[in-house]
Amino acid sequence: MERQDEPGGGLKHHDSAEELGSPPFSSCEYSRSPELEEPAKMRRNDNYLPVPGEEKNLDVDFTSTKPRSNESIPMKNLYADDGSPLYPQLGPYFSDGRRRVDYVLAYHIQKPSGIRRQSSRFGDTNFIRRLRRSLSMRSSRAPLQPKEDPEIAAQEQRTDYHEDDKRFRREEFEENLLETGLELEKDDGCKIPGIGFLKIHAPWNVLCREAEFMKLKMPTKKVLPSSVNCRFVLSIKRIFSVVFSSLELITAPLHPKVDANRPDSVKSLSHPFSREKQHLVCVCVPCLLANGVYTSAYPLHDVSMTLLYEEWASYSVFYKYQPIGLIRKYFGEKVGLYFAWLGVYTQMLIPAAIVGVIVFLYGCATVDDNIPSIFVCNIMKQITCDQKSVLFMEHWKRRQMRLNYIWDLTGFGEEEEDEKVKLTCTDRLPAYLTTVVMMCFMIAVTFAIVFGVILYRISIKAALHISTYPAARSNIRATVKTTAAIINLIVIIILDEIYASIARWLTTLEVPKTDKSFEERLIFKTFILKFVNAFTPIVYLAFFRGRLVGRPGNYLYVVGSYRMEECAHAGCLMELCIQLCITMLGKQLIQNNLFEIGIPKLKKLLRKRKSDLDSKQEEELNKTMQRHEKDHFLGPFVGLSPEYMEMIIQFGMVTLFVASFPLAPLFALLNNIIEIRLDAKKFVMELRRPIAAKAKDIGIWYNLLRGLSKVAVIVNAFVISFTSDFIPRLVYQYTYSPDGTMHGFINHTLSYFNVSDFQPGTDPLQPMHLGYPVDMCRYKDYREPPWSNTPYELSKEFWAILAARLAFVIVFQNVVMLMSDFVDWLIPDIPKDISLQIHKEKILMVELFMKEEQGKRLAARDKDSQDNYTSPSSANESPPQPRSRPISHANCC
Amino acid sequence: MERQDEPGGGLKHHDSAEELGSPPFSSCEYSRSPELEEPAKMRRNDNYLPVPGEEKNLDVDFTSTKPRSNESIPMKNLYADDGSPLYPQLGPYFSDGRRRVDYVLAYHIQKPSGIRRQSSRFGDTNFIRRLRRSLSMRSSRAPLQPKEDPEIAAQEQRTDYHEDDKRFRREEFEENLLETGLELEKDDGCKIPGIGFLKIHAPWNVLCREAEFMKLKMPTKKVLPSSVNCRFVLSIKRIFSVVFSSLELITAPLHPKVDANRPDSVKSLSHPFSREKQHLVCVCVPCLLANGVYTSAYPLHDVSMTLLYEEWASYSVFYKYQPIGLIRKYFGEKVGLYFAWLGVYTQMLIPAAIVGVIVFLYGCATVDDNIPSIFVCNIMKQITCDQKSVLFMEHWKRRQMRLNYIWDLTGFGEEEEDEKVKLTCTDRLPAYLTTVVMMCFMIAVTFAIVFGVILYRISIKAALHISTYPAARSNIRATVKTTAAIINLIVIIILDEIYASIARWLTTLEVPKTDKSFEERLIFKTFILKFVNAFTPIVYLAFFRGRLVGRPGNYLYVVGSYRMEECAHAGCLMELCIQLCITMLGKQLIQNNLFEIGIPKLKKLLRKRKSDLDSKQEEELNKTMQRHEKDHFLGPFVGLSPEYMEMIIQFGMVTLFVASFPLAPLFALLNNIIEIRLDAKKFVMELRRPIAAKAKDIGIWYNLLRGLSKVAVIVNAFVISFTSDFIPRLVYQYTYSPDGTMHGFINHTLSYFNVSDFQPGTDPLQPMHLGYPVDMCRYKDYREPPWSNTPYELSKEFWAILAARLAFVIVFQNVVMLMSDFVDWLIPDIPKDISLQIHKEKILMVELFMKEEQGKRLAARDKDSQDNYTSPSSANESPPQPRSRPISHANCC
Repeated sequence: MERQDEPGGGLKHHDSAEELGSPPFSSCEYSRSPELEEPAKMRRNDNYLPVPGEEKNLDVDFTSTKPRSNESIPMKNLYADDGSPLYPQLGPYFSDGRRRVDYVLAYHIQKPSGIRRQSSRFGDTNFIRRLRRSLSMRSSRAPLQPKEDPEIAAQEQRTDYHEDDKRFRREEFEENLLETGLELEKDDGCKIPGIGFLKIHAPWNVLCREAEFMKLKMPTKKVLPSSVNCRFVLSIKRIFSVVFSSLELITAPLHPKVDANRPDSVKSLSHPFSREKQHLVCVCVPCLLANGVYTSAYPLHDVSMTLLYEEWASYSVFYKYQPIGLIRKYFGEKVGLYFAWLGVYTQMLIPAAIVGVIVFLYGCATVDDNIPSIFVCNIMKQITCDQKSVLFMEHWKRRQMRLNYIWDLTGFGEEEEDEKVKLTCTDRLPAYLTTVVMMCFMIAVTFAIVFGVILYRISIKAALHISTYPAARSNIRATVKTTAAIINLIVIIILDEIYASIARWLTTLEVPKTDKSFEERLIFKTFILKFVNAFTPIVYLAFFRGRLVGRPGNYLYVVGSYRMEECAHAGCLMELCIQLCITMLGKQLIQNNLFEIGIPKLKKLLRKRKSDLDSKQEEELNKTMQRHEKDHFLGPFVGLSPEYMEMIIQFGMVTLFVASFPLAPLFALLNNIIEIRLDAKKFVMELRRPIAAKAKDIGIWYNLLRGLSKVAVIVNAFVISFTSDFIPRLVYQYTYSPDGTMHGFINHTLSYFNVSDFQPGTDPLQPMHLGYPVDMCRYKDYREPPWSNTPYELSKEFWAILAARLAFVIVFQNVVMLMSDFVDWLIPDIPKDISLQIHKEKILMVELFMKEEQGKRLAARDKDSQDNYTSPSSANESPPQPRSRPISHANCC
Repeated sequence: MERQDEPGGGLKHHDSAEELGSPPFSSCEYSRSPELEEPAKMRRNDNYLPVPGEEKNLDVDFTSTKPRSNESIPMKNLYADDGSPLYPQLGPYFSDGRRRVDYVLAYHIQKPSGIRRQSSRFGDTNFIRRLRRSLSMRSSRAPLQPKEDPEIAAQEQRTDYHEDDKRFRREEFEENLLETGLELEKDDGCKIPGIGFLKIHAPWNVLCREAEFMKLKMPTKKVLPSSVNCRFVLSIKRIFSVVFSSLELITAPLHPKVDANRPDSVKSLSHPFSREKQHLVCVCVPCLLANGVYTSAYPLHDVSMTLLYEEWASYSVFYKYQPIGLIRKYFGEKVGLYFAWLGVYTQMLIPAAIVGVIVFLYGCATVDDNIPSIFVCNIMKQITCDQKSVLFMEHWKRRQMRLNYIWDLTGFGEEEEDEKVKLTCTDRLPAYLTTVVMMCFMIAVTFAIVFGVILYRISIKAALHISTYPAARSNIRATVKTTAAIINLIVIIILDEIYASIARWLTTLEVPKTDKSFEERLIFKTFILKFVNAFTPIVYLAFFRGRLVGRPGNYLYVVGSYRMEECAHAGCLMELCIQLCITMLGKQLIQNNLFEIGIPKLKKLLRKRKSDLDSKQEEELNKTMQRHEKDHFLGPFVGLSPEYMEMIIQFGMVTLFVASFPLAPLFALLNNIIEIRLDAKKFVMELRRPIAAKAKDIGIWYNLLRGLSKVAVIVNAFVISFTSDFIPRLVYQYTYSPDGTMHGFINHTLSYFNVSDFQPGTDPLQPMHLGYPVDMCRYKDYREPPWSNTPYELSKEFWAILAARLAFVIVFQNVVMLMSDFVDWLIPDIPKDISLQIHKEKILMVELFMKEEQGKRLAARDKDSQDNYTSPSSANESPPQPRSRPISHANCC
């Protein structure tokens, strides 16, 4: 399992330069532009003294989104001597066929007006324009949806003023881009009417400059032979050589064919500067988009897409490992980490699913046996499952460390964002209060809905009971259960969507300080709401249903005269199973099919519709459309939160209730196998390429997972001890049983009831339905018999069994926690080979430094000796090392 | 409380250079020696290509231990132009009075023999000597204690061969030292007969070179005005200005007067290279010491000692904050962190002690009241105390981060040590098995001893009961309790010492891979053994005593006919209190007084005795002795483990059983106030100055603390629910009480016993001692009455109360854990002001880099323009930025 990353991103990951035949980073000698641009953040630093001549820069650059995958860094080497691209397959180019399109901005075009090409550099015009702009920025609430509607052209008369302003601003922006060294090309709405494209190319020197600002580390020329790893593998091979090689043969088809022909014995030693600009502190583009100056902004898909499509985003390769390295190169670290995490999670589900299926089959086969051994087996499984969830966390931590090393993120620290807003606690208090109140309210709504479904079940059951159609009555149970579960499912899915938007609204109210903080708060709120939403019905079924029914003669009635629902005589476990099954499958099917496939397709269709083309035209256009035009019709990338959220709720289902529903891991596994390829397809085919974002870990999701696995321990302890007969059986066998066996257990669990104690009007309608009058009946509870001093009170057995159940919970929880801590402590966070490799790199780094220093020293000495040649008297004194100085003896004796 | 570090190490900490009036790091232009030495680690790297001419270096240097505190870095500036030291008070110097003594090696001197000055550079002699040496190294198990005994001189005839060898090796070693650029001076046993000293001085260039190897970061010239901090403080001041200034006035005497006259508005921006060499990968010195070539090796105490003594290591300043910055400068980060931790811990004890005293007094005042409110109060206290232990961890984490920032450790990562031994798992298996078996055996021994003490108590009580002296009988309880507690204490202290040595032996057997691993394993083992040793008697008292007595008519008898001991009718809480009190006080008093003060003094005395001086001679010598001679008579530094261990056991006592013994925090606080100054005195006066070691955190101790506070939660839950009447009272009040009050509770807790049911021979000796025959008596237990169907069985009430107790444990544990996680999540690990400061530093760093780059660029452009002056045709093409390139329009319309 550890091998998953090796083909994709393992030691085969190195600079694309090598792939193209040039030495890796042989030199980074670029000429620095006089308009050296600084990152936007520094500009806002008070201590900053502006460099003359660059005050007007708007601090925008798109280099960030630029250098990428197979064709990125050695831009120089992409062109033959005659200037034509050496690798024409590497993507769309400017019309000269030489400069690659790195980023695209799209905008509306209206009919050319007289002021179209008006110069914007006169002082007065400038002043007026700026004034106007600042006014318009303050007054108009920025529309977040880019206005793509071509109908707007009809209203041009009215909006002409605004359109002019937008064009002016575009022009100024473009000038600024040129000043920073970027190269531009315009493509003014030729094929797609009403839409113009601004294509941007970032030349090599701009890339170098930006890279340097992002990381102050310089690349070295040294490459590290990955001998440590090889030696490590060898030492294992020496022992298991046969096993290992055969294993390799077997697993070979599991590896995607993406890196086969690359040499994997070298890894660039130091951190080559990052090829993705993680912090596009680009104030302008979002602002320009919000004001409708541009309608969209995106980098382009390129030729790697095909490889990704074939080896990753296809259902036919579902059994293969993911090419994580390639994914990271194409989409950036954040997306790469998501898929790596999903892969690890799916892998960990495989053994869980196998165990679950075995337990399920065994449970089915022995459903009527009274042997506690199957419960012991169940508990062992439970403990191993909780351990598995710990192991999963540990495994992921190690995998993440490994990826961090392979992706050269070891030195990368998350930049603190500048605070956008400064508000005191008192400013925030109303928002926080609103949040708390709203959250409580929504949780109450969820509870109310669950209670409503219970009422529905009770009343439908009652209605069907008194119905005169025998067919209806015979199917009562099945009908009620299924419809209730489906209602629950639909409610969950609808509420999920509502809660998501409420959470977003609440987070906006809170005005978080940074974007990161916004995201975290939003995720946290959404998680709580979705979690409560998904788990309330299940928790009710598992812990409350059948426990609030009262007793014969004193039933609990709700809403007038409906008796609270009881469990079937096999316990509520079956119903819990059905509910879990329907929720999991339904959520997955509906969310996958409807939301992840259906809606994006619909949106794409709508977007195409809007551009006023009939199908014939469209087909023709499709053939001739360039990459940037095609990408324009794809959906925008909206972040990974929905994907993570879906998975984490599933993780909750699997870990929290696996004791009740052993097939949960299997369902989750099947879903995830599809989910991976589905997400892959979506990312490759349906969405515009996201701006690559750097990330070291999966952030808040890891904490949520940790929290869930902690909650899982206690929930599982309760599920085992309270929803099954395990504890009562044990107690019976070891304390009450006369012969130490389970004989008489059922009798022991039943209490006596004297039918004369029924309250008037609640006694059965047909007292003679057995053919003879019944005096005494039995019911499942631990209560005193009618002939005791305290009839129908909870009996001593009840309390003893309750104490045993609680003791079990305490023991279980603490044992699992102790074992988790032990496992956590046992498994080092950094894999051994990675820490060795890092150590080795450090040593080589020092060595390199040493040699360089020595070279300097020798050169200096040579120079010295030359000098000394002219004045030999000073030469004797010149060695800086007093080698021959005698030991001075302070011998006072 | 956060202010503690500011005077000591806060923003007032900066380079000593400033203190001495020179600009901080104005330049580090040193001449590099041709014998550029590499750290020993690199030498052992296979990939390393040896630099010609340095194969013979033994990789030893003592610079590590050298640059220090007030007088370290700007070595150049220490001397006036005439070469005499500018600051003669700064420490001992070579006999020339110019070069400071940085490190001292001591050795034995025997009578001069003929071969004394024999050259050691002849090939043959060399070969034989080496052979001999390697043989001696292999055969003789190295004695770890340096042989200082002067009697050895008498055996010189016999050991002459060895002595010669030692001298040869010393000479070769000294030559190597000279080669690395160090400067030496010998002081051959003038005042102290039989002992010679080798004084070592590390010149400036050697320091620079070593510093560079240790950290590849270079210092910058930039200094950061600590405006962020100031502004932060100001913004607070604006609100609380009056309160704040008066607070400052009040707390002013709490701050030690060590940094008053230093400017605190600047902090050197980047990481100036470390002034302590943390990893003295010095294979040679320990080896030479082990072979007796040198007898001891230590750096010298210097003039800062006086300041430390006055402001820190004195009982008269017990109320002041510690000068952490100064401690760190003098002793290194490791010792600094220990005292900082001790300080934070002691501070956190203050509120705990106050709450504890209040609860204790309240408990004394209301000892006979039957109000559950005092238990509720107790529980609230308990929860707050558990929270406090979480808060303490959080507070320490933040403090550590702050110190890391202030001490410039943020970028410092622990170096991985090279593995010294490579053993496979099978090699280690026997050692691990031995460890497990021995640990189990020793834990069993502890249990046996505790059981022995129980037997002692029972039998003495029985013996005294049947004794005929009424005086003896009246004092039975007090006598037995006190003697038993004292026996326990003595056993604990003796076993502690035994276990410590067994743990060391076991760890040696395991042959850990690195020194760090050795230390961690040793600490872990010692901790487990000491913990079990200290807590077994207490756990017995808290949870088992009085619960295993059986019932009237069916008592539990041990060792023949002794009845198992019962609790007094007030519960075992009182005895638990006594035991805790005696253990805590006794351990602290005995360990502090005997082991920490008495034994070191004794050792010092012995060491002086050994050097054959009478008191008069000694007194005279004391006046004239130089620093290095004085330090020779001090004890060696043996690490911080014993100090930490003592504190962590105390922390366990305070957190685990605070519910039973509310005065524990007070005792701990009093002890710690003394402990801090005691340790300080020991470090300053009694021990040789330790080699400064760098550390980022307190390592394994933090994990042990975390583990303890986790265990504390569950232990406290059990203590509250099982050792007090809290739960039975609640249950009685809300379920059994007829009128909802506590009336009748005592009656409810007592069961009935029919005296006719006594087994023959166990009935009371005087059935008539009340004056009338007793038929029915009561005893404290929840059992069925004699007239029920199941007489003397545990009753329903017992099980109900047990269930309530267990439920309380579950609720308590999970609530506390949830709150801990919440607190953990709420408090950011990095204090806000520190993270702001770090952020600011990063920005300034980029700015500096920018300006430098710009300077280069401008220079290059100037050169360019000069070039262009000669060839104006190329000048038009030369600007690398294509400013005037027009947008290429690919307008296909």
